[in-house]
Amino acid sequence: MKNQLDSIKETLLMGPGPSCVYPDIYTALSKPTIGHLDPKFISIMDEIKDFLKQIMNTENSLTIPVSGTGSAGMETCFVNTIEPGDKVLILINGVFGMRMQDVAGRLGAEVDTVEFEWGTPAIPENVKEQLEKKDYNLVAVVHAETSTGVKNPVAEIGELVKDTKAFYLVDTVTSLGGIPVEVDAWNIDIMYSGTQKCLSCPPGLAPVSFSDRAVQKILDRKTKVPNWYLDLSMIVNYWEGSTRAYHHTAPINMLYGLYQALYCILDEGLESVFKRHQEAHLALVRSLDKLGIEMLVEPEFRLPMLNAVKIPDGVDEASVRKKLLEEHQIEIGAGLGPLAGKIWRIGVMGHTARVENIERFAKALAATL
Amino acid sequence: MKNQLDSIKETLLMGPGPSCVYPDIYTALSKPTIGHLDPKFISIMDEIKDFLKQIMNTENSLTIPVSGTGSAGMETCFVNTIEPGDKVLILINGVFGMRMQDVAGRLGAEVDTVEFEWGTPAIPENVKEQLEKKDYNLVAVVHAETSTGVKNPVAEIGELVKDTKAFYLVDTVTSLGGIPVEVDAWNIDIMYSGTQKCLSCPPGLAPVSFSDRAVQKILDRKTKVPNWYLDLSMIVNYWEGSTRAYHHTAPINMLYGLYQALYCILDEGLESVFKRHQEAHLALVRSLDKLGIEMLVEPEFRLPMLNAVKIPDGVDEASVRKKLLEEHQIEIGAGLGPLAGKIWRIGVMGHTARVENIERFAKALAATL
Repeated sequence: MKNQLDSIKETLLMGPGPSCVYPDIYTALSKPTIGHLDPKFISIMDEIKDFLKQIMNTENSLTIPVSGTGSAGMETCFVNTIEPGDKVLILINGVFGMRMQDVAGRLGAEVDTVEFEWGTPAIPENVKEQLEKKDYNLVAVVHAETSTGVKNPVAEIGELVKDTKAFYLVDTVTSLGGIPVEVDAWNIDIMYSGTQKCLSCPPGLAPVSFSDRAVQKILDRKTKVPNWYLDLSMIVNYWEGSTRAYHHTAPINMLYGLYQALYCILDEGLESVFKRHQEAHLALVRSLDKLGIEMLVEPEFRLPMLNAVKIPDGVDEASVRKKLLEEHQIEIGAGLGPLAGKIWRIGVMGHTARVENIERFAKALAATL
Repeated sequence: MKNQLDSIKETLLMGPGPSCVYPDIYTALSKPTIGHLDPKFISIMDEIKDFLKQIMNTENSLTIPVSGTGSAGMETCFVNTIEPGDKVLILINGVFGMRMQDVAGRLGAEVDTVEFEWGTPAIPENVKEQLEKKDYNLVAVVHAETSTGVKNPVAEIGELVKDTKAFYLVDTVTSLGGIPVEVDAWNIDIMYSGTQKCLSCPPGLAPVSFSDRAVQKILDRKTKVPNWYLDLSMIVNYWEGSTRAYHHTAPINMLYGLYQALYCILDEGLESVFKRHQEAHLALVRSLDKLGIEMLVEPEFRLPMLNAVKIPDGVDEASVRKKLLEEHQIEIGAGLGPLAGKIWRIGVMGHTARVENIERFAKALAATL
């Protein structure tokens, strides 16, 4: 019986995620499975929470990984804090803002949006105007828009939301571990992330964090969370306290992987990790410039870890991606939505974010074009 | 910096799951991560679907693993097929029937239940009576009740449900891979399972299967599925068809693990795997009998993979479990709900289901009591 896993080869992952995985994480994933109520496992869970708080810059006690991928993190944040009829404002300048709109709408929220051109950031002044027009229960924005490579001004918008009664929800799927994320300093009440971007762990878990005020909102709900699997009011009884009550069986080995990912990042030092991302990003921009390839986003708003680059005229973008993958074992990403066929998305995330990887990619791209 | 993963040791997992993992699965989990849209990965996904169909005995084309643990499978099955006001009948004789009731209620279903004594199976005659009283949209039952060790008569109940317009939903979390599960022959429309029981893979994925009739129900919904992450009408576009559309980033390495788990089972042969479970179960019952320990469930309704055993009088059950874990590296499970303190739950699942493991356990238990 042929086994397809035998032919899997190392690929240089430079798409929008997953990114290359730290070698120590592969070792972690293959540690022996133990029980989800084993005291040794509970102790690992406790340290994961502690590691996450350090990387998120928060004191929030409800800071845990949810048992699903980044989108499960989005679902968790909305489904726990929104009740039907709640007024929600979502800032949209890419696919993931649109996804938030869809998620919140399905839960019965009254959703307004402020939209910005894709490839440009959200403008705080426009947000301010909208907040003056109407009282919202929740305002949501994506920190690092993975579909465009834009960094939104999350801190500035947080200052505006602080002056209202609204909860502030931020998507940090692509930013966490690659650029600073300051949950407490930026007044973020609710946030979620993913493991397969700058944390450099395989996909499968979604770290989330909730301020005490947001936790109180969950406890004060008039209706049960319409999602048993992601109901944080029950999940916390497994992740916190002296008696850990079974809710669902935690994904043990994936949590070993996340533990190791956070360990690697904190061991290297957050500042040094951010610097590595920035250096690799700048090396990429220089290499692309030499090939006459332009960036979509203005320098000021560029994400180091997700580079949206304009496809040169006359180039068959899909065949370039195919050749890079087949002949050079390098993956880059296509554009999404209105940017499909117009940009490539080149990821410089986590373990991938090293100048030597950029050099290998630049050579391969030059040979392919 | 101390790394807690360094001190993880192999444990003989004889609780209600996770079970011991096939060694080849650890190797699979640590294969290099590749992209979720890489053709090599798509090909692995296709074979996972094929493997699952063989193990479930179904031709259902919508047969895929959901990106969450077994309870996410339960959530997926209900949230996709129930709309507010739908009439649902749930058969309850343990914790997981109760969980179904909670899940369905949160989604706005009108839920009726037929309850049976914990430790005894659902009685088809009682189900028949209830089905004659009222028209239901959906009837749900747990095949292998993990909280009691009881096997419910899923085939017989399927015959009754077939004569109504209701969809038949079955939880096979603990049964799949340990005893026959005949999705098509038993008229099951909707089913879910988990990876950490008899599939012997770490927890993290939930195989599900939907009949064409159930898929049509999803397509005919009047309302959007109130759960973006688990909306099968979108997820199928990633798992099926010629253009695989990104929905959420699949948990790549966990899917390697599931591929390998299914590969191991099919390579050994389903019949031989079932026989191994039955032999290990009988060896366990004999060993317990020698120690004067009785089973909770009558022989006819006993599950081989989940053995509910009565705690002998005067024994401090928690301290026995603690000693087994600390001194013998063997995990067994406590009772849940009304059976807490009254039973132990001894798992004989997947790679654990070997007579030599039973012998090791019996010796350790004798030394501990």
